[in-house]
Amino acid sequence: MKRLIKNVRLVKDACSKAIQDGMIVYEGNVITYAGKRTDVVSNEYDQIIDGNGCIAIPGLVNCHSHAPMVILRNIANDMKLEDWLFGRILPLEANLQGDDYYWGTMLAACEMISSGTTCFLDMYLDMEQCAQAVLDSKMRANISKNTLTSDKKTDRGTIFDGKAYEQFVKKYRGAGNGRITTSMEIHSLYLYEPELIKQSVDLAVETNSIIHIHVLETQDEKKNIEAKYKMRALEAMDRMGMFNVPVVAAHMVHVDDVDIQFMKDKSIYPVHNPTSNLKLASGVSPVDRMLKEGICVCLGTDGAASNNNVNMIEEMHIASLIHKGVNRDSKLVSARETFQMATLNGANALNSKIGKLEEGSPADIVLLDETGIHNAPGFGDPVEQIVYSMQGSDVKTVIIDGETVMKNREIIGLDTEKIIAEVKSIRKRLES
Amino acid sequence: MKRLIKNVRLVKDACSKAIQDGMIVYEGNVITYAGKRTDVVSNEYDQIIDGNGCIAIPGLVNCHSHAPMVILRNIANDMKLEDWLFGRILPLEANLQGDDYYWGTMLAACEMISSGTTCFLDMYLDMEQCAQAVLDSKMRANISKNTLTSDKKTDRGTIFDGKAYEQFVKKYRGAGNGRITTSMEIHSLYLYEPELIKQSVDLAVETNSIIHIHVLETQDEKKNIEAKYKMRALEAMDRMGMFNVPVVAAHMVHVDDVDIQFMKDKSIYPVHNPTSNLKLASGVSPVDRMLKEGICVCLGTDGAASNNNVNMIEEMHIASLIHKGVNRDSKLVSARETFQMATLNGANALNSKIGKLEEGSPADIVLLDETGIHNAPGFGDPVEQIVYSMQGSDVKTVIIDGETVMKNREIIGLDTEKIIAEVKSIRKRLES
Repeated sequence: MKRLIKNVRLVKDACSKAIQDGMIVYEGNVITYAGKRTDVVSNEYDQIIDGNGCIAIPGLVNCHSHAPMVILRNIANDMKLEDWLFGRILPLEANLQGDDYYWGTMLAACEMISSGTTCFLDMYLDMEQCAQAVLDSKMRANISKNTLTSDKKTDRGTIFDGKAYEQFVKKYRGAGNGRITTSMEIHSLYLYEPELIKQSVDLAVETNSIIHIHVLETQDEKKNIEAKYKMRALEAMDRMGMFNVPVVAAHMVHVDDVDIQFMKDKSIYPVHNPTSNLKLASGVSPVDRMLKEGICVCLGTDGAASNNNVNMIEEMHIASLIHKGVNRDSKLVSARETFQMATLNGANALNSKIGKLEEGSPADIVLLDETGIHNAPGFGDPVEQIVYSMQGSDVKTVIIDGETVMKNREIIGLDTEKIIAEVKSIRKRLES
Repeated sequence: MKRLIKNVRLVKDACSKAIQDGMIVYEGNVITYAGKRTDVVSNEYDQIIDGNGCIAIPGLVNCHSHAPMVILRNIANDMKLEDWLFGRILPLEANLQGDDYYWGTMLAACEMISSGTTCFLDMYLDMEQCAQAVLDSKMRANISKNTLTSDKKTDRGTIFDGKAYEQFVKKYRGAGNGRITTSMEIHSLYLYEPELIKQSVDLAVETNSIIHIHVLETQDEKKNIEAKYKMRALEAMDRMGMFNVPVVAAHMVHVDDVDIQFMKDKSIYPVHNPTSNLKLASGVSPVDRMLKEGICVCLGTDGAASNNNVNMIEEMHIASLIHKGVNRDSKLVSARETFQMATLNGANALNSKIGKLEEGSPADIVLLDETGIHNAPGFGDPVEQIVYSMQGSDVKTVIIDGETVMKNREIIGLDTEKIIAEVKSIRKRLES
């Protein structure tokens, strides 16, 4: 199948100047041309999509999420982190079971698709269910499987289960025509003993796995880790050999200049989660200083219980605003830098060729309708318009791996009513 | 005309518990019932609106805007305030003329309606054009007219023109069946000489006018005012007699605890403009501390050149997040406090009976569709859902002064395509 998207304002990536009169050709799941309009012979194409009134961008990459947490959306707000987590979220999560994770991931996938995200990095419980939902929703995802689990039945405390991890990797790495990749969840430095973490790191190196971890989200976490390890968190990670593989480090809020210098020659990809960090009162990550040092900062929504959306257009908006105000410098974290965090940087963290629209890139393409009232009069830089004015609801058409998964705001091939109904029923059960 | 909205989740105001199975009756432009569902005799009503799947809220009140600045949306981003204002915005504004202000206000009105705002307080150039747009768009607004102008032709510097002010008040106060009210713009303490400001204040008292002013937006402004007046800005305002009338004070970013104590017994309504203050790097207003002291803080979008929307759903979202993160306290500026800022507090500032849905209130009603994917599974507190998850695009139906101005997301009686085309043509002229 050879397809053409014509008449678009084309944003190939965060750095290039937008092309006002652009077009994209993709064959199967690969882009073969993305650039200025050329003479088109209509019968060359199996399908022509008219992108008139649209901006074409690479699909957004949500680099830290817990997809099934949409089940818990708005169940607990305006609470202290500890009360929220220990008093509300964990007790409810303990009652999640079976295909709850599947339906939760399906709902999150629908929300992500309809707000322009084509790929996400996810960490939660029962990632087999999550993987199945990724396959069924036609999204692209990197799925993080843990190695450390608490066996509640035997009450033996945390155990290392390398075999289950390897089986997961074998089953899912490259599944769905390569749409699924895998990584290792090491939840955090604070949840497990160092020996068990080290054992996991060794397996990550052995299996050539990306590590997905929460790092320095709160001030208390920083204090506790430094007390436990007698060194900085990043040093402890380094000592355990983590940086022998790429490390995608969510949050990274309580990071100072020493940490930033330390990161510069390490294979670390901090993920900024501004909404969650604000809402849970964790603080504001020094993203501006990390970017200045050339660190590959990515962007993520975190779970919908602390966001309360999984909408990367909204996340870009907040990421671009907060650092300017807090640091009193309106040039910080520009629209283009934010857009890069949400596209190419995320792609780099996941070692993927997505994140830009050019010959050879996977056909993960989002068309944003810019004809709405809130985008008028237009004429500005499209990247600035996306970050500062556009809404998730402007996402019109979404193509993942060459396949159209949303067209004119309708998600193709998924029964969204059934998905919503299933999640409502799970939520009712949890709260009953 | 007696109308019924049935089957809604009803949020009467920010404080009351939501009514799950609610209904609203309004006769002409006044609400005669808002509460739990009662037995309905269908033929009693001239019209029945089925609100199934919707949350009904009082229309949002945007308490500080410069509506025509939508013309300049995304014309200049990621710039220092001075470069933005003096290098870009002011030179472009100098070329605005004639009905540019009308079309700009019309576009802003369409955006406000379609994101749930029913009333706004506006300050800009040529407020006659603005008033005409309010009349034509069927919105409710308080329009601020200046008394101090620079007569460029005679080069006499700033002159006081009380007569023009009084004529404006006479013409527009109560126009449009009371949808229009008026106030006095005194731009700021820094733009004019104290004697001229004092003259304006005297006229405000004489004409029983609300004063609409920018106060303490930036650190530099604070320094300059204190150097010029040899006292705090609020003291200077007090000395000039401003607090003999209600003062709606936009921004109020650089406010300390002494200022907050000073405000407590003054007729001052600070307006929080979080997006603009972040984007222009002005800082973060201590809204949490003002609210704690019982000060009636309102919410506004400021102009779309520094926002870059006039969307109060988005503004509530950002207002609710920022203070938690910056002050590391997740209980600050709760969803309900934010919602109150955006409704009843704004209404109080404008001395209006809007801002709540109860017997006797004007029928300014917004129905928010909560059936979308990003709201699922629902079941949470509707106010928290609005502030943390909902999008401007969830606004389905808007009623202002008893008249339906938007239905199923379609703005009634306005040619939005023409409005967009007019604003595009103005923007092209400005940039040519």
